[in-house]
Amino acid sequence: MADLRQQALDYHEFPVPGKMAVCLTKPAETSMDLALAYSPGVAEPVREIASNPADAYRYTAKGNTVAVISNGTAILGLGNLGPLASKPVMEGKALLFKHFANIDATDIQVKHRTTEEFINTVEAIADTFGGINLEDIKAPECFEIERELIERCAIPVFHDDQHGTAIVTAAGMINALEIQGKSIDKAVFVCMGAGAAAIACMTMLVKCGAQRENVYMLDRKGVIHTRRDDLNEYKALFANNTDKRTLQDVIKGADVFLGLSGPDVLGADDVLLMADNPVIFACSNPDPEIKPELAHDIRKDIIMGTGRSDYPNQVNNVLCFPFIFRGALDVRASRINDEMKIAAVHALADLAKEPVPASVLAAYPNVSSLSFGPEYVLPKPMDPRLLPRVARAVAQAAIDSGVAAIDPLPENYLA
Amino acid sequence: MADLRQQALDYHEFPVPGKMAVCLTKPAETSMDLALAYSPGVAEPVREIASNPADAYRYTAKGNTVAVISNGTAILGLGNLGPLASKPVMEGKALLFKHFANIDATDIQVKHRTTEEFINTVEAIADTFGGINLEDIKAPECFEIERELIERCAIPVFHDDQHGTAIVTAAGMINALEIQGKSIDKAVFVCMGAGAAAIACMTMLVKCGAQRENVYMLDRKGVIHTRRDDLNEYKALFANNTDKRTLQDVIKGADVFLGLSGPDVLGADDVLLMADNPVIFACSNPDPEIKPELAHDIRKDIIMGTGRSDYPNQVNNVLCFPFIFRGALDVRASRINDEMKIAAVHALADLAKEPVPASVLAAYPNVSSLSFGPEYVLPKPMDPRLLPRVARAVAQAAIDSGVAAIDPLPENYLA
Repeated sequence: MADLRQQALDYHEFPVPGKMAVCLTKPAETSMDLALAYSPGVAEPVREIASNPADAYRYTAKGNTVAVISNGTAILGLGNLGPLASKPVMEGKALLFKHFANIDATDIQVKHRTTEEFINTVEAIADTFGGINLEDIKAPECFEIERELIERCAIPVFHDDQHGTAIVTAAGMINALEIQGKSIDKAVFVCMGAGAAAIACMTMLVKCGAQRENVYMLDRKGVIHTRRDDLNEYKALFANNTDKRTLQDVIKGADVFLGLSGPDVLGADDVLLMADNPVIFACSNPDPEIKPELAHDIRKDIIMGTGRSDYPNQVNNVLCFPFIFRGALDVRASRINDEMKIAAVHALADLAKEPVPASVLAAYPNVSSLSFGPEYVLPKPMDPRLLPRVARAVAQAAIDSGVAAIDPLPENYLA
Repeated sequence: MADLRQQALDYHEFPVPGKMAVCLTKPAETSMDLALAYSPGVAEPVREIASNPADAYRYTAKGNTVAVISNGTAILGLGNLGPLASKPVMEGKALLFKHFANIDATDIQVKHRTTEEFINTVEAIADTFGGINLEDIKAPECFEIERELIERCAIPVFHDDQHGTAIVTAAGMINALEIQGKSIDKAVFVCMGAGAAAIACMTMLVKCGAQRENVYMLDRKGVIHTRRDDLNEYKALFANNTDKRTLQDVIKGADVFLGLSGPDVLGADDVLLMADNPVIFACSNPDPEIKPELAHDIRKDIIMGTGRSDYPNQVNNVLCFPFIFRGALDVRASRINDEMKIAAVHALADLAKEPVPASVLAAYPNVSSLSFGPEYVLPKPMDPRLLPRVARAVAQAAIDSGVAAIDPLPENYLA
């Protein structure tokens, strides 16, 4: 890893610091160019926008711009390192937005003392952008922050650590359960971890058919149950009316283990206790809740996913966030609602069932399986079909659910 | 103008809305690229910045990024049209930053209820950037906003409507006075207008040698004098202990008329009352305080400047702001202080005295004079020497005045 470490630092430092720059989409060479771009010509779009605010989408970059905003309180798995330290991650996210969906993302780090201050700051600058991607904000504040900003802003606000993770997890889970011959509404889920991603994943799985009474969520103190009095309102939604208290209590007979916690918390003994044909998504990064080699050694009937690119079935947010914003921006959705998120889940799940094009095979020469099955329940990030499929599904769902300003989609949209 | 109107709208709308996009400065094609740019590689610069915040300049785009921030309360000459309507102007400013100084500027529109809220918002996001250019914020709030933000932020904060205008005005004025054979410390100034730009210009001229008792500033109520009780603290700095009350009272014998007010407020009769060899900078845009044709018809001994590109001696902020930020960013100055501003004034004034290169002659085929004299007291915006001259002077002044983190300048800096 020492080599990767230096490579990563060099990548960020040379030949210029960072990963992005601004480039002009209009000519700026002659005096006439500048007279149109700035004074006096710029007064014209100003007047138009002043009389019709929606014209900002015609005359400015607003409609293709997403702000990637963090306060640095939960950076990757590294914790609360403050806003400035989150900048490389936010710029990285912006790079992914650009590369995968041609969205112009700008990163903003926010220093604040209270949650209310953070919300006020983001609200105050929101009109600048076409959408807001919240990132690396710790729980439980992230829930209030997102809820308030959705309420206060006229543009989509999306906390990717929650919903991006939830959408990709749900898509992979639906496919894995199908392969294992299990029905989502009967499956028993153990969710290790009760942070923002865990709560969002289980919320999404419930929306996709999982039964809340079949969900056992665990935090550092064990199973979240109805007799605990130390639960915040978000964990409380998953309090199970059960006498079970430990991972060992709940893993027995469970169909699904979803890990969004830390390394190596799922033991070989635990895996042996699970139901036949179980699904294990061990998403802790970089070290999963159980190593895939170990799990597969223990039993052969597992479908396993992780957060890592070097194992099959990577649960990777990049399968979702560029495309969900692409679809939302393209129909000028006022928010990203459940209908749009669920459309993204199904678009991803469906895409994994189709044969991959040659370009995807070429991009993953070392991957053993790229056809639907236990080692391929999710599309790969380099799959060029992600953009049209997911964005179109999301855009159409926005239209159908009444949150889009543009309707219908152009016939040749992203074709 | 109907034609220019439609051209300006078309320029902003087609082929894509707005004037700028994000582009990547690092590869993002392969899985390895993405592993360096994002997970897991990005954790390395995060850790470095967490332990040494200055490393943000090594590993992120911070050091070359300027935020162009407005609340839309004083957009061009159009007034308070709100933050969103200011977006084309702010994007235009960003275009100028990129084109003239290769600075990556990002525009932010801020909605707020109070001045304090605006200040808090900008302070909260300031660490994201290498510098902040405030723009189109009305007086007198702009003074408090800038003062507070300079105090609270570790990066340069610069209200261009004040200081950019002041620097360019002072440079042109110094040259015009020299040509007219007048000494700045004896010259009598009439400043029509008492807004942000007017106050900044006169403050700068005083720093360059003008005597405060020789300055007559006028607002809508006439001469600003010491017996008025309706002056804010900023206008009060220019209250003159005089019995003169009107423009006609003060213009008699004045050496300089500086207009930062509105169209046609200076009459032919007024011009006749001025001292021999006067200087008139009529900067109201697009319609100056007196039309140059009219002024030159009345008397032949005038040197005249305006805010327009179609007359000689255009007082244009673009001569300053890209380069003052270039210099400040390149030595990582913590602020833009008076020393740096004055260095910019002299760099601009000096450059106008040098013969222009052929490329400048070619860029201005219709301009009658491009050699130092009554019709050429300021360099032209397309002069490629502006970048190295002004930025170097500013950077060196930052070093000499102790606000630079990088010292010395590289020998071949911008050479």
